[in-house]
Amino acid sequence: MKKILITGFEPFDGFTVNPAAEVAKSLDGRKVGEYSIRGLVVPFDYSKAIEVVEQAISDYDPSIILCCGQADQAAISIERIALNAISTKLADNYENTPESDIITLDGPVAYFSNLDPFQLVKALLDSGIPAHVSYHAGLYGCNWLLYNVMDEIERGSLDAKATFIHLPLLPSQSIEKDKMSMATMPLEMQIEALLVIIKSLS
Amino acid sequence: MKKILITGFEPFDGFTVNPAAEVAKSLDGRKVGEYSIRGLVVPFDYSKAIEVVEQAISDYDPSIILCCGQADQAAISIERIALNAISTKLADNYENTPESDIITLDGPVAYFSNLDPFQLVKALLDSGIPAHVSYHAGLYGCNWLLYNVMDEIERGSLDAKATFIHLPLLPSQSIEKDKMSMATMPLEMQIEALLVIIKSLS
Amino acid sequence: MKKILITGFEPFDGFTVNPAAEVAKSLDGRKVGEYSIRGLVVPFDYSKAIEVVEQAISDYDPSIILCCGQADQAAISIERIALNAISTKLADNYENTPESDIITLDGPVAYFSNLDPFQLVKALLDSGIPAHVSYHAGLYGCNWLLYNVMDEIERGSLDAKATFIHLPLLPSQSIEKDKMSMATMPLEMQIEALLVIIKSLS
Amino acid sequence: MKKILITGFEPFDGFTVNPAAEVAKSLDGRKVGEYSIRGLVVPFDYSKAIEVVEQAISDYDPSIILCCGQADQAAISIERIALNAISTKLADNYENTPESDIITLDGPVAYFSNLDPFQLVKALLDSGIPAHVSYHAGLYGCNWLLYNVMDEIERGSLDAKATFIHLPLLPSQSIEKDKMSMATMPLEMQIEALLVIIKSLS
Repeated sequence: MKKILITGFEPFDGFTVNPAAEVAKSLDGRKVGEYSIRGLVVPFDYSKAIEVVEQAISDYDPSIILCCGQADQAAISIERIALNAISTKLADNYENTPESDIITLDGPVAYFSNLDPFQLVKALLDSGIPAHVSYHAGLYGCNWLLYNVMDEIERGSLDAKATFIHLPLLPSQSIEKDKMSMATMPLEMQIEALLVIIKSLS
Repeated sequence: MKKILITGFEPFDGFTVNPAAEVAKSLDGRKVGEYSIRGLVVPFDYSKAIEVVEQAISDYDPSIILCCGQADQAAISIERIALNAISTKLADNYENTPESDIITLDGPVAYFSNLDPFQLVKALLDSGIPAHVSYHAGLYGCNWLLYNVMDEIERGSLDAKATFIHLPLLPSQSIEKDKMSMATMPLEMQIEALLVIIKSLS
Repeated sequence: MKKILITGFEPFDGFTVNPAAEVAKSLDGRKVGEYSIRGLVVPFDYSKAIEVVEQAISDYDPSIILCCGQADQAAISIERIALNAISTKLADNYENTPESDIITLDGPVAYFSNLDPFQLVKALLDSGIPAHVSYHAGLYGCNWLLYNVMDEIERGSLDAKATFIHLPLLPSQSIEKDKMSMATMPLEMQIEALLVIIKSLS
Repeated sequence: MKKILITGFEPFDGFTVNPAAEVAKSLDGRKVGEYSIRGLVVPFDYSKAIEVVEQAISDYDPSIILCCGQADQAAISIERIALNAISTKLADNYENTPESDIITLDGPVAYFSNLDPFQLVKALLDSGIPAHVSYHAGLYGCNWLLYNVMDEIERGSLDAKATFIHLPLLPSQSIEKDKMSMATMPLEMQIEALLVIIKSLS
């Protein structure tokens, strides 16, 4: 049976929940079509997250890696590009802030994801779930994780297909921040989105 | 048994669906707590809509009137105020455009809704559904309908409590417009929201 | 010579400057067409601001009152309506927060401004300054001040024409908040806007 | 004397004016500090624009190339990255639409601009002009032009420093589209911005 690793960051930015972590926990251990799923909650820690994901990859040996994270946006986005850039004044959950705006000094400026984003978006739209291809994964932990995973793949030390999936916030997150202008998507639809994506990979 | 009238405009602005009409159709004929529900789809027609709603009120004799409409926003809003104003260059579905920006020349500038919006919002938030009290119902058909209903109530020709509920767009609407920046809420959560509101009225 | 009173709130919300106060100070003492101008900076103090404005009206006896305030928006807006409503959790500069969301319990729900907003907007657009008529002056100090001024006029204790003018933020305000998504308008264009408005009143 | 080439696209998207073209025309022929300026209006034509810019570079031999374009944003942005990607359904002014979302099949996924964006942003902020470093130049003609210029530089066929400067819309553009929510910046401030940038390069 083929293996998929789904990663989701733990809650940060003052939230008590993160849709990506919820999706990863909910799908962990499930089998969908020809795939078995491992769901991994990743610490939002610039000094440890890559190591934690690499260890999981090494242990589980997935052929597909779907890194997930939250974004303040209405639709699901499938990221096409990882930039060699990180730019934020906000610390992670462990008081680390990036020192440079370059992730890897000797790395290329960007990588394309090697998982076709158009196929995934088409599958989501056909299922009635708003989604689009994105060419900018942001300048925080999400882009940083995808760049590191693609770097391993492109340098030949990892044989897998990977992308990053940005998930909208949950309704409970707009309530806990008392910010009713934030677009949200219920967890049930987000889990359904991941199932649709996985089925489209077969 | 007490009676509730739920109105929802038919689709407009190039959409094939309107969440308010869907909610009205879905709840029509149901009984919730001590209330029986009549759901009415209202033509988006400045020359007929008021007459259609007044006829339904006359036929059904509801004690609660929940006028519903769609809005390009993330959360449900319960309207506190109806303005004696309408301002749009867009025609309705029948080629009517308002001639004046005043709805009723001899009417007051605004009415408060007579259904407590804070109670409804609290019930929605307690159920995990993003919602807020709004003090501006827009300048289109939604505010116009609420002003007319409140005008009847305040002038004494109608004995009921009424408000306007703005509902977010449906996921299928962002897909049919290919506009992934539009916030949406699935129909199931919108119907649940109306049920929560009705239960909170008992 | 006819007299115009221009009021502008002092800085608040963590800003060191307020475009409305700058415009009021800049135009104070000037003569434009048939009008002489008094510019008044108003404390952002729910317990004193009305008294300060009423005292200035009593002292100066203007026939036109242009209340100005800042808003996080791109264009100048001329307010058509003042609501009998105030709703904010934010304190003013003196630690007062409104206790009720009603300004005057025995007042009407809203007043129209008695200065034609369409004429002012047309004059601004003809001068190349982005502007529009607004039907919602917000739920903070700006709407509150306009409601109180219109209340005096409508109850007959003040014979003047009045409106509220919302001004965009200044470029220096987006810089001091390090928030480059905020729309701004340079002070020179804002002062020019007030001059255009005053000339259009003759 | 050192030479700077400033390019600006001609108007498109239904506008009659483009701030970048206005800035280029306004500065053409001027001398600022140790630089003489050539301003070039570039046709918004995917089949010709690169050729036009390359011809100007060949004729004028600039050491600095500042490509400018309009963006629906409040502040000036200095672009740090050019992506090997173009994605739009909108045709240029000559009915061309990109066939692939890749600009150059054998090119790298992205280039860094070789003109330090942080220095330029600091100079603008010190002059009171809202500005920020951007890591995403969009997916239209602006990013496409920067990618092509950086491609020439990085492949060794052009010896110059280059970046892309996104300029806000002009007040007249929000008026001609009757869209008062669009952030704008007056032309005088935009020209001042370019002068500040050029002085900071010395």
